[in-house]
Amino acid sequence: MAALRVTVWNEGRHEQVHEEVKKIYPDGMHNTIARSLREKGFEVRTATFDEPNHGITDEVLSQTDVLTWWGHMLHNQVEDRAVDLVQKYVLNGMGLVVLHSGHESKVFKRLMGTSCDLKWREAAETERIWVSDPGHPIAAGLGDYIEIPHEEMYGEPFYIPTPDDQIFISWFKGGEVFRSGCTWHRGRGKIFYFRPGHETYPTYHNPEVMHVIANGIQWVAPNEGAKISGRHHVVPIEPLPKE
Amino acid sequence: MAALRVTVWNEGRHEQVHEEVKKIYPDGMHNTIARSLREKGFEVRTATFDEPNHGITDEVLSQTDVLTWWGHMLHNQVEDRAVDLVQKYVLNGMGLVVLHSGHESKVFKRLMGTSCDLKWREAAETERIWVSDPGHPIAAGLGDYIEIPHEEMYGEPFYIPTPDDQIFISWFKGGEVFRSGCTWHRGRGKIFYFRPGHETYPTYHNPEVMHVIANGIQWVAPNEGAKISGRHHVVPIEPLPKE
Amino acid sequence: MAALRVTVWNEGRHEQVHEEVKKIYPDGMHNTIARSLREKGFEVRTATFDEPNHGITDEVLSQTDVLTWWGHMLHNQVEDRAVDLVQKYVLNGMGLVVLHSGHESKVFKRLMGTSCDLKWREAAETERIWVSDPGHPIAAGLGDYIEIPHEEMYGEPFYIPTPDDQIFISWFKGGEVFRSGCTWHRGRGKIFYFRPGHETYPTYHNPEVMHVIANGIQWVAPNEGAKISGRHHVVPIEPLPKE
Amino acid sequence: MAALRVTVWNEGRHEQVHEEVKKIYPDGMHNTIARSLREKGFEVRTATFDEPNHGITDEVLSQTDVLTWWGHMLHNQVEDRAVDLVQKYVLNGMGLVVLHSGHESKVFKRLMGTSCDLKWREAAETERIWVSDPGHPIAAGLGDYIEIPHEEMYGEPFYIPTPDDQIFISWFKGGEVFRSGCTWHRGRGKIFYFRPGHETYPTYHNPEVMHVIANGIQWVAPNEGAKISGRHHVVPIEPLPKE
Repeated sequence: MAALRVTVWNEGRHEQVHEEVKKIYPDGMHNTIARSLREKGFEVRTATFDEPNHGITDEVLSQTDVLTWWGHMLHNQVEDRAVDLVQKYVLNGMGLVVLHSGHESKVFKRLMGTSCDLKWREAAETERIWVSDPGHPIAAGLGDYIEIPHEEMYGEPFYIPTPDDQIFISWFKGGEVFRSGCTWHRGRGKIFYFRPGHETYPTYHNPEVMHVIANGIQWVAPNEGAKISGRHHVVPIEPLPKE
Repeated sequence: MAALRVTVWNEGRHEQVHEEVKKIYPDGMHNTIARSLREKGFEVRTATFDEPNHGITDEVLSQTDVLTWWGHMLHNQVEDRAVDLVQKYVLNGMGLVVLHSGHESKVFKRLMGTSCDLKWREAAETERIWVSDPGHPIAAGLGDYIEIPHEEMYGEPFYIPTPDDQIFISWFKGGEVFRSGCTWHRGRGKIFYFRPGHETYPTYHNPEVMHVIANGIQWVAPNEGAKISGRHHVVPIEPLPKE
Repeated sequence: MAALRVTVWNEGRHEQVHEEVKKIYPDGMHNTIARSLREKGFEVRTATFDEPNHGITDEVLSQTDVLTWWGHMLHNQVEDRAVDLVQKYVLNGMGLVVLHSGHESKVFKRLMGTSCDLKWREAAETERIWVSDPGHPIAAGLGDYIEIPHEEMYGEPFYIPTPDDQIFISWFKGGEVFRSGCTWHRGRGKIFYFRPGHETYPTYHNPEVMHVIANGIQWVAPNEGAKISGRHHVVPIEPLPKE
Repeated sequence: MAALRVTVWNEGRHEQVHEEVKKIYPDGMHNTIARSLREKGFEVRTATFDEPNHGITDEVLSQTDVLTWWGHMLHNQVEDRAVDLVQKYVLNGMGLVVLHSGHESKVFKRLMGTSCDLKWREAAETERIWVSDPGHPIAAGLGDYIEIPHEEMYGEPFYIPTPDDQIFISWFKGGEVFRSGCTWHRGRGKIFYFRPGHETYPTYHNPEVMHVIANGIQWVAPNEGAKISGRHHVVPIEPLPKE
């Protein structure tokens, strides 16, 4: 089986303007993620906000099986053209993995139809990500939970459509809970949202987190479906009475 | 209990430019729908594409419990401002009933996140709308099915997110099937899509169709929910260790 | 509107054999729950394991709009006849509210089809029940969460079919999370599972807990649906060709 | 990848007592299905009602990745022991494909929790099975629909829990519709129901029908999940205050 072709999209601005983020991800969060995924056997390219067209073009997406998306500061500056294109490809079968603050990206909100709002707090607190659907392939190889010593808190209510699968639910030391691993189908495409990944903590250096992201990529990867005719205006199959 | 306040939105253009539609709905489809709903005890106003701001303003929506939406020719000319406003109100609890060709409206596609595409044919054929969820309040008072002698055909695949409730499925004489009554939750709001209603047939004069629309309005009506604080950036409830 | 007729079912054995439980519920947990519900305007009767037929008969259920179910020690001694009867009534529209350890009752497992297993611990720890679906009528009138100072812990994975609505998720001081408020549709009936209620803590004296149970009863109450013919072997509606 | 191990279960009684069925399936429907699946590369064994323990034992199921189930006349004579065992294996990850009149089997009703009732008619009429979820792997390789010239009719309402995926919807010449391809998750297991297959028509000789069954087997096949500890009574992870 040919390797899955993954495009890792990263806003990439925190790494330029915040020293503490630069220390954790010296050549950008996308390259940390990409290296880990390459080691796992994926064929990976990266794209960032600062590239022409944000690196989101027909040429790139037509060669992408799965797109991962991390953004934060510049959500509202992402061009609608790029959002339209990502939506089009997802509806046609491209997989999408939305990471952490990507919950508020135009791309995710476009596909969900809701505000995707939540509560939050930066307090370097413990997050314990419980497996709530142990039979799900995205949980393959995990134990009862993943523990991350320092993360940003996200709390309910998370304003999303009811997920198709509820794979992970997080516990936070400070007292909140969050649906931190969720999936949805949209058209022929599959979407996986995975919560952890605040830029000031080394979350994407965590092997268990990268294991889940890899599982998620496998799970949202496109599959063969029906060869629908594509005709919209159709003639009757059965004979109709003359009026 | 005070009457539900319903705003019936209609594009209203076919009635101006097509003689056969004008005959069926002399003062516009919205007025036919509104009269029927008033007889059933709703407090009804109407709004159309040609009004300033399409009649979709904060003043109108803040006094609307449920909005019904019929459009066709002018979908792409509906202002994004109006779409943004409808989405905002639905996410805050306003009910939405989307009728027939409203499946391709900006409003519906915004809330679904998908293309909402389907097959279609105008051949004045029989539609038989089967009840697939007999316990659902939207089916209250119906028998096994509703039969409409002449309708436009809509056929699967219908590119929508999996509905929360699948209340009706249509059979068409010419050989197709369609998920013709579906619901979704989005934020605090509820949405009901109901298929029949092609402009060249007298569908909104059909008492059973209007009965379902009235049931749908009751079902998507806002309800009291939790009084969430609305704070997004929150402090810990439990004591956190000093780092 | 006539008052909803609620039957509060309680195993009722802990109150007989454990002193600490007897102190909290001197005349049985069912009577504590029933009194609270009567104050809220429901028409309430009770039934317990020790009554003939466990108090679950056609006569009782035919006059019951909503049944609530609490059991624990004697799950396996509940007669299958009673389970069959409850299932039959739920599928025909009777509402069911399953409380706490009722998660492992024959009644709940019959309607879910799964093991309904979970993790647990008795350590008198804090439970914080977060509202994850603020627009849901079962959350009406609540704030961001309910806090219970001392409860038994239930932890994920909870082996249930994906709930239709995910209304509450619990945080536990000891480190776990749990989907503590869930709904399902089965036939014409609606089911609400609500987690708190361990027999050694005064949970059913907590006004917020009783408020949620009352909301749940309202929500699962039967509604009018379609008048389906009930014929199973049917003749063609459309003419079929002679073979 | 090792071949999937499939056990094809068949009641096998119609073939003994009805001449017309014997003509279509001279050595039993199970052998027709098994031969087709072997040609597609599965490792197949069969089991029937008349074998000791109906051929449903720990020895068989522990070596089964996916079980297919066809029954009709003898549903109520299937031993509860066998039903318990199938449920246990499905909840632990074994896939289950339920065929045609298996909708009323004890096995299917146990896993659904509902009556699984429907309307029916034997009139050798055309069934057109539309693809409603073209991106689903179970629809892979199909066109817009499958047409079967002569089948038994099944009609809505079909009393099942809302399916996770709605892959196929059938149109019947005589005027009805039916949700003919549905999936559910139960525990770690996946279930696919596929409608066609009345014993008096040569449906399991139809290559498209067998293609869908093979797709279904692939889709419900077990997958690796999380390695959950299996402990139910657990100690706190976080320190709890002394009371």
